Amino acid sequence: MASEKKSVVVFSAHSGDFVWRAGGAIATAAQRGDDVHVICLSFGERGESQGLWRQEGMTMEKVLQKRREEATNAAEILGASTDFLDLGDYPLHVDDEAFNRVVDLLRAYQPHTILTHVANDPYNRDHNMAHETLLRARMVAQAMGHQTENPPIGAPQVLMFEPHQPEMCGFSVDLLLDITEVFDTKRRAMECMGAQSHLIEYYTDLAVRRGVQAVRNGGPKSITHAEAHARLFPVVGRELV
Amino acid sequence: MASEKKSVVVFSAHSGDFVWRAGGAIATAAQRGDDVHVICLSFGERGESQGLWRQEGMTMEKVLQKRREEATNAAEILGASTDFLDLGDYPLHVDDEAFNRVVDLLRAYQPHTILTHVANDPYNRDHNMAHETLLRARMVAQAMGHQTENPPIGAPQVLMFEPHQPEMCGFSVDLLLDITEVFDTKRRAMECMGAQSHLIEYYTDLAVRRGVQAVRNGGPKSITHAEAHARLFPVVGRELV
Amino acid sequence: MASEKKSVVVFSAHSGDFVWRAGGAIATAAQRGDDVHVICLSFGERGESQGLWRQEGMTMEKVLQKRREEATNAAEILGASTDFLDLGDYPLHVDDEAFNRVVDLLRAYQPHTILTHVANDPYNRDHNMAHETLLRARMVAQAMGHQTENPPIGAPQVLMFEPHQPEMCGFSVDLLLDITEVFDTKRRAMECMGAQSHLIEYYTDLAVRRGVQAVRNGGPKSITHAEAHARLFPVVGRELV
Amino acid sequence: MASEKKSVVVFSAHSGDFVWRAGGAIATAAQRGDDVHVICLSFGERGESQGLWRQEGMTMEKVLQKRREEATNAAEILGASTDFLDLGDYPLHVDDEAFNRVVDLLRAYQPHTILTHVANDPYNRDHNMAHETLLRARMVAQAMGHQTENPPIGAPQVLMFEPHQPEMCGFSVDLLLDITEVFDTKRRAMECMGAQSHLIEYYTDLAVRRGVQAVRNGGPKSITHAEAHARLFPVVGRELV
Amino acid sequence: MASEKKSVVVFSAHSGDFVWRAGGAIATAAQRGDDVHVICLSFGERGESQGLWRQEGMTMEKVLQKRREEATNAAEILGASTDFLDLGDYPLHVDDEAFNRVVDLLRAYQPHTILTHVANDPYNRDHNMAHETLLRARMVAQAMGHQTENPPIGAPQVLMFEPHQPEMCGFSVDLLLDITEVFDTKRRAMECMGAQSHLIEYYTDLAVRRGVQAVRNGGPKSITHAEAHARLFPVVGRELV
Amino acid sequence: MASEKKSVVVFSAHSGDFVWRAGGAIATAAQRGDDVHVICLSFGERGESQGLWRQEGMTMEKVLQKRREEATNAAEILGASTDFLDLGDYPLHVDDEAFNRVVDLLRAYQPHTILTHVANDPYNRDHNMAHETLLRARMVAQAMGHQTENPPIGAPQVLMFEPHQPEMCGFSVDLLLDITEVFDTKRRAMECMGAQSHLIEYYTDLAVRRGVQAVRNGGPKSITHAEAHARLFPVVGRELV
Repeated sequence: MASEKKSVVVFSAHSGDFVWRAGGAIATAAQRGDDVHVICLSFGERGESQGLWRQEGMTMEKVLQKRREEATNAAEILGASTDFLDLGDYPLHVDDEAFNRVVDLLRAYQPHTILTHVANDPYNRDHNMAHETLLRARMVAQAMGHQTENPPIGAPQVLMFEPHQPEMCGFSVDLLLDITEVFDTKRRAMECMGAQSHLIEYYTDLAVRRGVQAVRNGGPKSITHAEAHARLFPVVGRELV
Repeated sequence: MASEKKSVVVFSAHSGDFVWRAGGAIATAAQRGDDVHVICLSFGERGESQGLWRQEGMTMEKVLQKRREEATNAAEILGASTDFLDLGDYPLHVDDEAFNRVVDLLRAYQPHTILTHVANDPYNRDHNMAHETLLRARMVAQAMGHQTENPPIGAPQVLMFEPHQPEMCGFSVDLLLDITEVFDTKRRAMECMGAQSHLIEYYTDLAVRRGVQAVRNGGPKSITHAEAHARLFPVVGRELV
Repeated sequence: MASEKKSVVVFSAHSGDFVWRAGGAIATAAQRGDDVHVICLSFGERGESQGLWRQEGMTMEKVLQKRREEATNAAEILGASTDFLDLGDYPLHVDDEAFNRVVDLLRAYQPHTILTHVANDPYNRDHNMAHETLLRARMVAQAMGHQTENPPIGAPQVLMFEPHQPEMCGFSVDLLLDITEVFDTKRRAMECMGAQSHLIEYYTDLAVRRGVQAVRNGGPKSITHAEAHARLFPVVGRELV
Repeated sequence: MASEKKSVVVFSAHSGDFVWRAGGAIATAAQRGDDVHVICLSFGERGESQGLWRQEGMTMEKVLQKRREEATNAAEILGASTDFLDLGDYPLHVDDEAFNRVVDLLRAYQPHTILTHVANDPYNRDHNMAHETLLRARMVAQAMGHQTENPPIGAPQVLMFEPHQPEMCGFSVDLLLDITEVFDTKRRAMECMGAQSHLIEYYTDLAVRRGVQAVRNGGPKSITHAEAHARLFPVVGRELV
Repeated sequence: MASEKKSVVVFSAHSGDFVWRAGGAIATAAQRGDDVHVICLSFGERGESQGLWRQEGMTMEKVLQKRREEATNAAEILGASTDFLDLGDYPLHVDDEAFNRVVDLLRAYQPHTILTHVANDPYNRDHNMAHETLLRARMVAQAMGHQTENPPIGAPQVLMFEPHQPEMCGFSVDLLLDITEVFDTKRRAMECMGAQSHLIEYYTDLAVRRGVQAVRNGGPKSITHAEAHARLFPVVGRELV
Repeated sequence: MASEKKSVVVFSAHSGDFVWRAGGAIATAAQRGDDVHVICLSFGERGESQGLWRQEGMTMEKVLQKRREEATNAAEILGASTDFLDLGDYPLHVDDEAFNRVVDLLRAYQPHTILTHVANDPYNRDHNMAHETLLRARMVAQAMGHQTENPPIGAPQVLMFEPHQPEMCGFSVDLLLDITEVFDTKRRAMECMGAQSHLIEYYTDLAVRRGVQAVRNGGPKSITHAEAHARLFPVVGRELV
């Protein structure tokens, strides 16, 4: 299926989210030749860097530096570019300037598909903020009257990757993405993410379980690893899938 | 994308439903070489044959005969086979024998995809009954311990076609199916359906509106007609769609 | 507004439900000249007659007789006719014959409005069964091809009266019906219902609370008693109400 | 029913929304003698003025001027006054000053009924912002302790007009408003709205479809055009409607 | 906390469900001295005995025998009694006689707590049927007018155990039950269940994941294994838990 | 059950909310030795002080003073400490400084349980704002990288107390808290709240009704008064409750 090259944007509240939750999707897209751009709103420096803060003599500056390196390396392995907006986490702050930056990036990347967080996660309101920011920025980036160097974007699909506790977030699976072929790549990307090695086992197990579910939902028996995603907008297509 | 030939089952409460609501999906599948099988649970002889009953001297026998002819002709134009279970409508009755017949048909046809009604239509409980019957029969047809000549089926996707009043039925669109190329075929099939000519205009307009929505949701500008479908189970795939 | 006389059907799982939950609506309609017909599917003889069963020497025959008398008296006070289908309660059984009887009654009464139970009450599945039976019977009674002496019905609105534990049943109020003027009538009807005198206080208090809510939602300050109802279908109207 | 003259406020995110989505409701209210006040939060200058931006030499100033003229003319035809808050669109910004302006207008107009957007439209977050702003302003305008020249408002009903893609917004119809008599007026208002002539056909077709639905839901057969609205708060009334 | 001995009923559509989904809950209750009664509506002989059917020379009689042995052994290890209603699976049939049997069992066991399936599992309608049957039987068993040797039951809580694909069934966790101490017992029970050894690993992993979630939700760090349950009715209590 | 002393935080949009909606919960916790801390975001000076504003010569300063006194007295009777953030009401404003104050308080109090408002109350958006603020502050207070004098908090449960119109707010009861023993205390606290004496009767009646519901849901017959609460996160436990 030699469909044309696409542009994919991954909109990640913290700099680790895209690896754990969408690493397989990124590697799959990159492998087939798509341009994949990860936008990290924050480094998760306060809320998702426990391992680093447990190290002696740790400072905010060092955490930010380390998290940037880890995410850059992981993205490179997965085959994606990175933009770090450094907006602060816990809570994530998106002011007008940051918002306009997001709009500009969407116009620059002209995505066919955007991956981001769910709308309502009771455990992590930064995720909700990322979701809302993305929907607003998508709307503005589509507006003909918002005039910038780059033209308006089309109507990219928005996929929401699986949250940590899906049954608490109203998450219903729309796509079980076969990531069998790229799982080694995702695993290597996860290994960049510092001390959180238990998370690697966690997300490996999750991929196996989603893979089993994929086969049970009619996928080929060759699937061993998968990722779950939910879809915000209808698919437009010519096949009954 | 020369994907393999598939089997599609359309599970229709009344003998007209499949034409109006899924005619484009059927013709699209048939055109690409799929086997499409329409199972009509009833002829809609009591609840959906107003035109016929308004004719003088009409009898139940004549209505059943006429509805069978119309549906057979429409299915032929769309490229689908037909099974008529003649279970009675308003209300639809599915007894054990009828249920087993449905299971046998699913096993005979081994569908990759099934199209049927939504789960909750306050206006038409026959539609709900069809939905529930399909989900149960799908489950039984999958069971290894239910032993019949034909083997168990896999895990076919279930698509729900658009109900008449979608916003009253909790219908949320998952697939905007491009039916531009087959719309003439659907129109000819609709023209088989007796006196209900205003419905032809209605469903033509709906197809145009869904086509516009498809383009706005990122489909190619060449789309002029579409059908909306909702999906019950997650898609298993290797692309972010 | 001297609008024309209407026909109202109240579809009650047990013979007490219509008094407690819709007595104000019935009296209001009767007072303005509407024909109100209460259809009791059962006498609530097993599940809602605790007071009677606590009396010594009580038998099923006596319970049925007493419950019929009570409901007949209450309906008379409210201004409604009664049909008792005596289908048994806990659980309520609706076989084909009973179902056809319901359809016949709907066609005989040609209701503009139907009052019944909510769709999902986890405490009382007889209520759900009444709701489902009503929706099915309404559909059949509308069908031109279902030929009976009486003609098909139109498209009566279905109002759901307030369940005992509204927040457990997904009940959302659509109508706060002012029953101030008829509350004495409702109270007298409630007093027919045997030993359950604490229920009279309960439903009096509820009416007062709903009355307060009515005023707070913009009703005239003269409202002292109200009943809450939810609506299944959209209203058709010429005013923004 | 010679009920008294009422005050209606229409709260529109962009200066076109009120015409397309609520024009029939406005004309209906105005025709019966109500005071109707349209509050436009923005001119939709960036997001909903594609036709203007496609014209050569277009500037923001000209767009704003043109959109103001169009909306003023349309409102005049419909029979409503206009307030333009000019808060900017895509995204809509409501700062404290603007918010207080909205509260002041609500107190000045003392509405019985307010029309606005739905709570959750994934395509257009300006609509959500308008909904949230309205609910907040309504709350403040009701507060006795918020002291202004005009007194607190009562408890106006909030109706939500039909969004462009209702099944994606959780829109469920509560009111099918008969706009048959005023449809010509709505059409003339729509014709003020510049180059978007395809929208006129679109909303004419929608009105016809909603009209058919109104008849099917029990409205008089004379209805040919209708608008769908959802209701946020319960109705308070003395009739079972 | 030496609270009194309780009666727990586990209502299982197929004879394996109670082991996999509620084995920890059963062992926990039994260990503290509660009486635990498992009611198996069917043996899952057609739909959940793939391993057996793959063996040569397998017959329905042998499957039923084997499944009964396995479930009996597992229940014994967990500390529960068993009732096998043998109603057939795929689909599960509950006729009036079977229904009355269920009511009789509930009255005989006088449960404080009942565990069963969720209300809506699109993959397995037998689970839904078990849920509905339980709610109805609970209602009848509560009715004073339903006169049997055993007295009416009280108002037992209904817990729903975790379905196989929780995010597809609208499952939201209300209780993370600490099963750390009894997990070995659950594991031994699982090992009785024939060839399905991969399921043992699956449910062990799930218990570990739910254990981690329990700690993250504020449970003691000693928790290593847990089960997720949802609650249908409110808890009545004197503590804020 | 001599369980250890806990810390409870009550997060109240206006200074009266905690008394009416959670007074029983507070007194129950205090009585068993817990530390209970009430955080009032505002005094409800504009929106919930009608009685005061009706007095001649009333000024904002006097209202604030009076409301502070009332809430302080009520909290003292209930056994709770108070923090008044004085952020203004109708609408409630939570800027960065206020938000950080909330985080600091959560870290200082290290709550096991937090009580607050529901997520979506169409009548009162200050309540929603309090809910959202609490969830965000809880998240930040948990973050290891947010470094303050006090350590991060654990994972306190969040209970939502009953809103005024529960069925309009999607409120579903999870806990019926027995407040029989402390109801006199709650009543005395309510009597501190100024002229709103009808509210005392209202909340007394509500407590009685919830008490009846508690008994019907299986609580001991000794319960005469209860409060309804909903739970946001799963309970972690070792018993099937």
